[in-house]
Amino acid sequence: MAGTSLQINCYPMVSTAKQYISRSNPGRRSLLFRPIKVASVASQSQSSYWDSLNVDIEAYLKKAIPIRPPLTVFEPMHHLVFDAPPSLAPALCIAACEFVGGGRDQAMVAAAAVRLMHAAACAHDKLLSAHKPISRPTAQREFESNIKLLTGDGIVPFGFELLASEPERSNAGRVVRVVAEIARAVGSQGTVEGQYEEVVSERMERACEKREGELHACAGACGAILGGGSEEEVEKLRKYGLYVGMMQGMLRLGGKERFGEMVERMRCLALNELRDFDGRKIETLSKLVEPDFCCA
Amino acid sequence: MAGTSLQINCYPMVSTAKQYISRSNPGRRSLLFRPIKVASVASQSQSSYWDSLNVDIEAYLKKAIPIRPPLTVFEPMHHLVFDAPPSLAPALCIAACEFVGGGRDQAMVAAAAVRLMHAAACAHDKLLSAHKPISRPTAQREFESNIKLLTGDGIVPFGFELLASEPERSNAGRVVRVVAEIARAVGSQGTVEGQYEEVVSERMERACEKREGELHACAGACGAILGGGSEEEVEKLRKYGLYVGMMQGMLRLGGKERFGEMVERMRCLALNELRDFDGRKIETLSKLVEPDFCCA
Repeated sequence: MAGTSLQINCYPMVSTAKQYISRSNPGRRSLLFRPIKVASVASQSQSSYWDSLNVDIEAYLKKAIPIRPPLTVFEPMHHLVFDAPPSLAPALCIAACEFVGGGRDQAMVAAAAVRLMHAAACAHDKLLSAHKPISRPTAQREFESNIKLLTGDGIVPFGFELLASEPERSNAGRVVRVVAEIARAVGSQGTVEGQYEEVVSERMERACEKREGELHACAGACGAILGGGSEEEVEKLRKYGLYVGMMQGMLRLGGKERFGEMVERMRCLALNELRDFDGRKIETLSKLVEPDFCCA
Repeated sequence: MAGTSLQINCYPMVSTAKQYISRSNPGRRSLLFRPIKVASVASQSQSSYWDSLNVDIEAYLKKAIPIRPPLTVFEPMHHLVFDAPPSLAPALCIAACEFVGGGRDQAMVAAAAVRLMHAAACAHDKLLSAHKPISRPTAQREFESNIKLLTGDGIVPFGFELLASEPERSNAGRVVRVVAEIARAVGSQGTVEGQYEEVVSERMERACEKREGELHACAGACGAILGGGSEEEVEKLRKYGLYVGMMQGMLRLGGKERFGEMVERMRCLALNELRDFDGRKIETLSKLVEPDFCCA
């Protein structure tokens, strides 16, 4: 975060990420006197952090999704999951968990489930007709429509199955809560409504809020829940995720040209949710809204 | 059960439902001396029992599924759930719970979730192309394909949301187990595989096993889990459900003309799973495989 500097006019009280850092963790002030050098180091290590999360989630999912008969079902499932357009939500789930003091393993299954839900929605995007959904960058092979339909239909319950399989007994309360969070985020008031708004109503801001917004919000909240965060932390990371997701949605649906002002507004709102944390990891978490990271 | 008399050659050891009853509950033997009179009374009260379960599940779901904006999403959801072809699985879930000594309320949400999963699959049936799925009796209105797709996509997570919302803390372990059971039953090794086998592979017996079979098996197991049944009871009610479901699938896909022998075989296997229970409610539960009930 430090050094890449968000030079924008954030309307809620604090104007740059630097200020968040200096306010929330005065001990790190020295960073601000050496912006360029530290920036590159910090930025590199933060990128590596997010890369490492994505690598770990992918490795977990590769073990979890077997290639088994019928191959006509499982091979496309493998493909549609691993070649789905990228999403920041799964990694955010683990980062939020670590942010509140939890371990990576505690949120790994939830992160994998979030990624599965995202992949399922992308598989069904291509079945929506009448209006063409706006395309995402993708390396997805084309499967025939029955396979896209059934594969998407199979991926969603698989996500819930992963979540609910063999949890430690002591953790069942949190798992149930995460199941409810993810179910809400991907259903008729989340992803599904987002798809509807995008493809049928063409209300794009609402589509961003309900689709990417709700999924990233859920990812932040679930990570915090599983990491043992307080209710306040859960709600702040939920809102942080909401704004991160809305930015992602806007960048997908029209980019800066169409949503430039809104994207900046979301960036400020997102950072504002982090300001009260006493911030060892704020730099890392706020990387998600840096222009060179989130718009890449 | 008594009096409607399953006059079939059941190959596992016991040949009629009457024998199950007399073996498992000798105190009821008097029933067997007055078959006709008792039959009609018993049959009526057993039918009322199943009717009452379905009425209760429907009432629960009508409260749980709001009609709220966007109406273009929620109105079809309402319609596709309540006008879906009938299924015995939701009521079996509650009956299994009561069978092992639990209360109706303990399995109501799981039964509703099972019904939602069934409705979601039926909504997506009509989107499967290339081969036409064999039609079910239905009063479903025709919605355009985007709505059928998104409504089905919304119904499944709603089922999980219901399951996971506000459970008592003490019950979280059972809820997690039921989430895993239902997720497995409706995913790529259950309903989805069944749809694939039916529509793409056209392997109808396998389709019955994976679709109706797995869902009814899951319903029996979940009811027993939620009612506090032993592991042995859970597994017996799972198998009972499997055979009940396979009968239902066969009756849908070809009826007695095509699957007559297999249907009778499933009936016997189903009854065989009940024989070791000491039987107060065996008559009621076995109603599901009686010809006048299951084939109606």
